Amino acid sequence: MFASEVYTSRRLTLLAKMAEKGAKGLAIFLGNVESPMNYWDNCYKFRQDSNFLYFWGIDEPLFAATLDLESGEECIYGNDVDIDDIIWMGPQDSVAVKAASVGVANSRPYSDFAKAVAAARAKGREIHFLPAARHYTQMTLASILGLAPEEVVTAGKKGCAKASDALVRSVIGMRLVRDSLEIAEIDKACDLGYEMHTVARQGVKVGTVEQEIVGRMEGTTMCKGWGPSFATILTQHGEIFHCHSHEAVIEPGKLLVIDAGAESNVHYASDFTRTYPTAGKYTSQQRDIYQIVYECNELAFEFVRPGVRYRDVHLAVARHMLDSLSQLGLVKGDLDTMLAEGIAGLFMPHGLGHNMGMDVHDMEDLGENLVGYDDDQTRSPQLGLGSLRMARTLVPGNVLTDEPGIYFIPDLIESWKKDGVDKGMVNYEKLKEYYTFGGIRLEDDVLVTEDGARRLGSKRLPIAPDEVEAAMAAE
Amino acid sequence: MFASEVYTSRRLTLLAKMAEKGAKGLAIFLGNVESPMNYWDNCYKFRQDSNFLYFWGIDEPLFAATLDLESGEECIYGNDVDIDDIIWMGPQDSVAVKAASVGVANSRPYSDFAKAVAAARAKGREIHFLPAARHYTQMTLASILGLAPEEVVTAGKKGCAKASDALVRSVIGMRLVRDSLEIAEIDKACDLGYEMHTVARQGVKVGTVEQEIVGRMEGTTMCKGWGPSFATILTQHGEIFHCHSHEAVIEPGKLLVIDAGAESNVHYASDFTRTYPTAGKYTSQQRDIYQIVYECNELAFEFVRPGVRYRDVHLAVARHMLDSLSQLGLVKGDLDTMLAEGIAGLFMPHGLGHNMGMDVHDMEDLGENLVGYDDDQTRSPQLGLGSLRMARTLVPGNVLTDEPGIYFIPDLIESWKKDGVDKGMVNYEKLKEYYTFGGIRLEDDVLVTEDGARRLGSKRLPIAPDEVEAAMAAE
Repeated sequence: MFASEVYTSRRLTLLAKMAEKGAKGLAIFLGNVESPMNYWDNCYKFRQDSNFLYFWGIDEPLFAATLDLESGEECIYGNDVDIDDIIWMGPQDSVAVKAASVGVANSRPYSDFAKAVAAARAKGREIHFLPAARHYTQMTLASILGLAPEEVVTAGKKGCAKASDALVRSVIGMRLVRDSLEIAEIDKACDLGYEMHTVARQGVKVGTVEQEIVGRMEGTTMCKGWGPSFATILTQHGEIFHCHSHEAVIEPGKLLVIDAGAESNVHYASDFTRTYPTAGKYTSQQRDIYQIVYECNELAFEFVRPGVRYRDVHLAVARHMLDSLSQLGLVKGDLDTMLAEGIAGLFMPHGLGHNMGMDVHDMEDLGENLVGYDDDQTRSPQLGLGSLRMARTLVPGNVLTDEPGIYFIPDLIESWKKDGVDKGMVNYEKLKEYYTFGGIRLEDDVLVTEDGARRLGSKRLPIAPDEVEAAMAAE
Repeated sequence: MFASEVYTSRRLTLLAKMAEKGAKGLAIFLGNVESPMNYWDNCYKFRQDSNFLYFWGIDEPLFAATLDLESGEECIYGNDVDIDDIIWMGPQDSVAVKAASVGVANSRPYSDFAKAVAAARAKGREIHFLPAARHYTQMTLASILGLAPEEVVTAGKKGCAKASDALVRSVIGMRLVRDSLEIAEIDKACDLGYEMHTVARQGVKVGTVEQEIVGRMEGTTMCKGWGPSFATILTQHGEIFHCHSHEAVIEPGKLLVIDAGAESNVHYASDFTRTYPTAGKYTSQQRDIYQIVYECNELAFEFVRPGVRYRDVHLAVARHMLDSLSQLGLVKGDLDTMLAEGIAGLFMPHGLGHNMGMDVHDMEDLGENLVGYDDDQTRSPQLGLGSLRMARTLVPGNVLTDEPGIYFIPDLIESWKKDGVDKGMVNYEKLKEYYTFGGIRLEDDVLVTEDGARRLGSKRLPIAPDEVEAAMAAE
């Protein structure tokens, strides 16, 4: 938790932004409750709602808050403990003390939150809410607001129609620009991610079960941080993006994609990907593709500076990728035509990167397009570019990932071939040599600075192919 | 996952039990979906609903099942994947193949589940459902069944009034008696729990931050199993039962309570507690109390056999505890009177143990009293005995925890003193020497066998005080 002034100042900024937009009424914030794992009292590790945490700081379940956009009155809702709670959870500060610790003067019992919203609705006041990011919040907000559960969540990439556009845009505007306190926390999360990936790289040995490396990595994050910032991806099937099965034994000659990050104790994320040769040396085929992905990663970083659109960085990377793949004979034709036709999407069917902050895909619950696109940008329908989560014009304080990848996905290749999607620009014959290749992704976390960019964390994980092989040989 | 015959046989047994109870209509089972952590697509590690897993085996999100109690017809509901899913999740077996792998001949799309329930309701057929254990299940069942969300969950210890009593009792009857396959899995979970606690004990060093040990322990569970079976308790404040804060640095002269267990990859739990002297040697005051708790643990194990009520084992332990505490001068008076008045509850305000199986508190979502009490037993209102989760007459195949503890909780002691709860049987003056003591708990997992009991797992963690000190000295 930061000092109380941080939260007070954020709420004042929010009030000012809402006033600029002419918004009146009551802004409401519902914190998370415990999330049951297999029964009501056996819960996953508590994670507070990021927006609640950002404005109200209290990192505990069953809290809510209201901010009156006209009077500026703030109130935190939560329950004080009784003797039974003390036996199970120990002595606790009162809700009033907790509220004061984040600069809030008023506090009331939790059940008064619904009453406060009902009273404001009865007076015809507008209620500003953010889309719910969990089932409890969905169910509770729907009930309090008299809406259907599907009306209070983000549907698809466009956001939630019934949520407050003014509040959503104000929050996005604030959270997209990280201040120095936040950047220091992201650096910490990155340093922990570095440790996590180092433990992982040291564990890459033929014969090891993937799960053992995952256990050691995730254990590392919990020793000093909150835990993993998302479910670790560690797979010899890099062509499957969200492969969460870890039963396989590490075999020689494969590529192992490790995409993982840590969340700091105050809830800022890191997110790195490296791709290792399972037996310590890349084959010549692997090295050719690796070199392209590595160059794409470096190229993207060189492009990042204020005023540049990240969509254009994605396209510059796609262009370099196509150029290099054409030198390998995998694609053929005019470079601009290939780029315009989205041929790169066959090899990289995801975007170059996403915003990262308190959430690893920051604020994704508020609507991908609102978070990642300027008002004058429209999302491409193409495979790859269409998956780009961050397309905006960069400003200092933005934090994003730089994560190009090349994958050979047999089902996708066959589907393009069958449908002629490539318009003759893909060499399917040559591609057959790559059907068991898997995939390569290389990801760093980048801060947009006043005059350029900085890779986050104090050290960069080995990434150049020689550097990776040397690190593995030394371990 | 077990062989398909296991699940087929369980469903046949369930059908027979429901028929015995005269139940007709449709039994419905709603599996879990992914549980969002900070936004909809960043989820906690998937954990299937235990009852779904027990009868239908499929360990993946977004499945449901129906069992027609009259025709015996079974159906599994789930969605087949498309090319977008394949890019992100890899090629998948069809729902039909997955259904066949657990012995089910029929499968349909997920959305047909709600339709099947609606069709049965429209015909006036009875719908048998189990109480929901998560918010999504609560919201979805309520909507499908036309009930309020609070009507489909277990409220307090009595269970859920609208859920099917026949189904709840049938499931409890089956899951309370573990077969050899299940016991083998629990043994595995216990062996992993042994490793987890060994790593922990080796990490107990003055100056270490508690969180570092927790990280190493939980990492250990993920290397070979699903993960921790519940949030690890590791605290120098053993008097706070569910202390999940791990920021403290280990100080000399304290007691460190570690209560943690592992869940195997096929979802069976272990649960052990040990209490270590932070600097490697118990003080004389600590050793006196430790010896009592140790004797209570051993005594309970000796009592466990078929035909014995676990409530009586709890009382035998409470009696020995009071007898020993009176020798230390902490309580005074006639032993039977102290026992009847529940004086032991001041020192052990929890029950001696609980059922353990797929859930660490097995089936708690179905209602504590139905799971843990015979029909002719009523739950005591006393502190301690009233928290006993397992009071039943033991039968072979029961798996339970044996976890006596002694705690000195200043707020609780002061509250008893103020209200005269002890009727003069507590020596408050002497108790003042224990206000910074903390607490001790010692827990093993026990299987009721045909002729007695067996501690689960291949090895028992060091527990006798000399044995603990020797293990710590060797590390």
